[in-house]
Amino acid sequence: MKKTCTLLLSCPDKKGIVAEVSNFIYKNDGNITHSDEHRDDEEKVFFMRIEWDLKGFKIEPERIAEKFSPIAKKFRMKYDLKFSWIIPNVCIFVSKYEHCLIDLLLRHREGEFKCNIPLIISNHDKLSYIGEEFNIPFYVFPKSKRSKLHQEKKELKLLKEYKINLIVLARYMQILSPYFVKNFKNRIINIHHSFLPSFTGKNPYLQAYKRGVKLIGATAHYVTEKLDSGPIIEQDVIRVSHRDTLEDLKRKGRDMEKIVLARAVRLHLQNKILVYKNKTVIFD
Amino acid sequence: MKKTCTLLLSCPDKKGIVAEVSNFIYKNDGNITHSDEHRDDEEKVFFMRIEWDLKGFKIEPERIAEKFSPIAKKFRMKYDLKFSWIIPNVCIFVSKYEHCLIDLLLRHREGEFKCNIPLIISNHDKLSYIGEEFNIPFYVFPKSKRSKLHQEKKELKLLKEYKINLIVLARYMQILSPYFVKNFKNRIINIHHSFLPSFTGKNPYLQAYKRGVKLIGATAHYVTEKLDSGPIIEQDVIRVSHRDTLEDLKRKGRDMEKIVLARAVRLHLQNKILVYKNKTVIFD
Amino acid sequence: MKKTCTLLLSCPDKKGIVAEVSNFIYKNDGNITHSDEHRDDEEKVFFMRIEWDLKGFKIEPERIAEKFSPIAKKFRMKYDLKFSWIIPNVCIFVSKYEHCLIDLLLRHREGEFKCNIPLIISNHDKLSYIGEEFNIPFYVFPKSKRSKLHQEKKELKLLKEYKINLIVLARYMQILSPYFVKNFKNRIINIHHSFLPSFTGKNPYLQAYKRGVKLIGATAHYVTEKLDSGPIIEQDVIRVSHRDTLEDLKRKGRDMEKIVLARAVRLHLQNKILVYKNKTVIFD
Amino acid sequence: MKKTCTLLLSCPDKKGIVAEVSNFIYKNDGNITHSDEHRDDEEKVFFMRIEWDLKGFKIEPERIAEKFSPIAKKFRMKYDLKFSWIIPNVCIFVSKYEHCLIDLLLRHREGEFKCNIPLIISNHDKLSYIGEEFNIPFYVFPKSKRSKLHQEKKELKLLKEYKINLIVLARYMQILSPYFVKNFKNRIINIHHSFLPSFTGKNPYLQAYKRGVKLIGATAHYVTEKLDSGPIIEQDVIRVSHRDTLEDLKRKGRDMEKIVLARAVRLHLQNKILVYKNKTVIFD
Repeated sequence: MKKTCTLLLSCPDKKGIVAEVSNFIYKNDGNITHSDEHRDDEEKVFFMRIEWDLKGFKIEPERIAEKFSPIAKKFRMKYDLKFSWIIPNVCIFVSKYEHCLIDLLLRHREGEFKCNIPLIISNHDKLSYIGEEFNIPFYVFPKSKRSKLHQEKKELKLLKEYKINLIVLARYMQILSPYFVKNFKNRIINIHHSFLPSFTGKNPYLQAYKRGVKLIGATAHYVTEKLDSGPIIEQDVIRVSHRDTLEDLKRKGRDMEKIVLARAVRLHLQNKILVYKNKTVIFD
Repeated sequence: MKKTCTLLLSCPDKKGIVAEVSNFIYKNDGNITHSDEHRDDEEKVFFMRIEWDLKGFKIEPERIAEKFSPIAKKFRMKYDLKFSWIIPNVCIFVSKYEHCLIDLLLRHREGEFKCNIPLIISNHDKLSYIGEEFNIPFYVFPKSKRSKLHQEKKELKLLKEYKINLIVLARYMQILSPYFVKNFKNRIINIHHSFLPSFTGKNPYLQAYKRGVKLIGATAHYVTEKLDSGPIIEQDVIRVSHRDTLEDLKRKGRDMEKIVLARAVRLHLQNKILVYKNKTVIFD
Repeated sequence: MKKTCTLLLSCPDKKGIVAEVSNFIYKNDGNITHSDEHRDDEEKVFFMRIEWDLKGFKIEPERIAEKFSPIAKKFRMKYDLKFSWIIPNVCIFVSKYEHCLIDLLLRHREGEFKCNIPLIISNHDKLSYIGEEFNIPFYVFPKSKRSKLHQEKKELKLLKEYKINLIVLARYMQILSPYFVKNFKNRIINIHHSFLPSFTGKNPYLQAYKRGVKLIGATAHYVTEKLDSGPIIEQDVIRVSHRDTLEDLKRKGRDMEKIVLARAVRLHLQNKILVYKNKTVIFD
Repeated sequence: MKKTCTLLLSCPDKKGIVAEVSNFIYKNDGNITHSDEHRDDEEKVFFMRIEWDLKGFKIEPERIAEKFSPIAKKFRMKYDLKFSWIIPNVCIFVSKYEHCLIDLLLRHREGEFKCNIPLIISNHDKLSYIGEEFNIPFYVFPKSKRSKLHQEKKELKLLKEYKINLIVLARYMQILSPYFVKNFKNRIINIHHSFLPSFTGKNPYLQAYKRGVKLIGATAHYVTEKLDSGPIIEQDVIRVSHRDTLEDLKRKGRDMEKIVLARAVRLHLQNKILVYKNKTVIFD
């Protein structure tokens, strides 16, 4: 496996950013393997994702941030450095529907996701057998209105112990508290079973059925304090007709949920997403 | 050209509907060329579209309704009879954007729509040159808040003179009054430039742009008193990304608007749509 | 569960088919729950799928064929009767890729397929662990050029023992002999990992990669003697770009393979497919 | 309007390309507005598209190539420089079907294409009225087997007079000679009315109809000496069913043809396409 470094940055748009960043890598004998950029012409913001091979790179990985900091300062960059050999830890949250959870675990087994999945958390024990099948610890934190915050504290403690970098809500039917969300800003991916912003909240398939839409969809987004309103990462739709019952909508929808969530998780793990102003830049 | 009769009906679900209807046709020497049905299991409603060749049919067209009425009564049917040689008259309403109007006229010229288009109505004279190009009378009724109802009356009078059966709002940027709508119940098709129910009202592309959706859409629906809330006939979507500006959204959206509106108009003209409970049954 | 009977038929087009068939059901007190038809105007062939509730039906299920035969004879129909309480037995064939097999088994567990899956057959033992996980006997018949016909005989014997009605090739990488295929005419569904008729035969993803197509697809079809040329049941595609490596094509393609195969299997199990002239009529 | 320069290049992959190119621009006070890259890891080839604002750029446009040449030599680049104020001249070739031609002309009028369309060439006079409607000279060169090469010479002469940069075959039903093609290498875009490589040659809709595919498509590609085998620029598909007649396939296909061809022409005019090894890199 090649050892690479990925730099994700955003800053006010200005002359010379690409030149300085690529020079920094070139002068230190790095070989750029991918590079992508975006300018928001309205907001005058510049976004960049650049990845380079560290073979022969003159700066030790742990000192790259330090050496890069003058450029970052000069352009007032927000940035992140990711190293290919540091495998992120992902925790999946689930309630009673198995399809997204199993789909993620199977894709992980197939090698689609470069991450560890050291635990699963649920508010029910219904799906604990999946933890057993895949040999992954399955923790249950039942939640009532009263116990919610208390249970979340225990969850946060556990997530810390497991050094979790990303939470995936694979049809987790509990709303997380603002405090919880703040601890994992832009690091909680939810799958909502509608084509957002249509049909937020409960029973989106029933809402879609009643409205008589001709396509149903699924939306993967980062969780923010406002329900189903965070930055959208990925969406897709499938055609339905008057012949489809509510059950058919749910069945067809499951395929969209699985595919859309998997794409979003993969993009996140590949460090291909930048968030700004409740939107995402996807460097695919 | 074959002369055919199309029967569209809905009624409470009951044994024997198909048998009685098909027998009625068979006994009178009609040859069924298409037949499609639908049952709404929740509402216990039965829907049917049946078309038959009138060659050799024992009943004169003008007496079919009378002869069919006992069956209709027995099953408490709502129904419509359409004859293939009666070409409906369509009036297109348009404001300042030409793409949907021209698209409809070109498809009409290509033979995709079996209808006459004897006039175009607009609240501006901007696109009157298109009327000239296609040799179709182009009427202008400018509307202010004060003049609206008055102008609508003149429009209704004109529509009556031209014996208009269907109105198509091809990006017509005026809200029709409830009175106007009532005169053309389920006979006004609008194209809304979003994937409804997302982004109703003004500037849906701007709304979509701001929300950061990954797909944009268009929706053709029958106009009801409530804005952008009528029965949906057809929808489609197209992928967008962070690289797409608002202008790109509008450009990509135009293709969806044209295609979705054309499909809806064609379905209506082929008598393939049944409306119930703010939803459509599409016999395609 | 309602007990229903489904009649699938095709015959030369003629007046009175719908009337006679629906009368047969109505006079014997059956309640039609679904009915769909198709006429091929070129070939002058009529196709029908009609399903009715047997509650109160005057004819015993085992005598329906006999009582229906005069109508069948009169119109020279080919027909099939399917009863809702007779659950078909399905055997899945697989080689070394697990994704389609697991996907089918999970959908079966979710209730998407009304069938039994009493055994899995493979030419390798690589995936036998899946049989164990799902508690389904997993038989291995390795095949060489020399042993192939001999092994097929053993397979056919086993399929007979298990009363198998449908074979699903879930990425089974062996070509079946004409003799084997003849024994399961229109009852073997294969998933080919390309948008047929493009890229038949080996390594379709590599072929697609080399040709530089912008969409890749998957095709589910009935197996005939001629490789990848049988009647197509379902197809779908997904967008790819120059950024996608061969591995990406395979990964994206897996999602298409799973979805397309599952749709085809479901349609078959619902008795919604009629085959004629190497094409399918899909009553969805 | 901003004045920009776009550099399209490909070369063997090597360290420092991005750094040198971006430095060249930065040192001369150019402001990069877009930049995109691609590496083919198998072929070890590097591709780049970089666009910068010439406001304040120290090098005169006509001397940029000269000043850039040392970098180009060093990395053995093939490259092209495009200036935003040089509007390319496009000639549309058409035979008897109007839809693609009109669609292109309407999009041009809407501002979707930054180009001039100073003439239309046809082998028939059937569509000459469109030239009149849009006020564009319409030349007719009827072709027989014997006259073909002679007529092509006259066409080439005309194309030279009009300084044509790009030829668009908008359903032009004549095969161009290798000599003609060589004169416009990677500068002739054809729309083929199938999902290539399926159904090359004549009557692709009839071929698709006979094969019973469930999706039909359209493909825009650069013309090479080998029929329907050039580098694919864009493809799209639309769903069809057994209910669709051959005429329906043609009607549905027209929408795909128009959209796919328009996308390809737009990409070419935006200098977003690089060709290598019979494939395209699309910098969208």
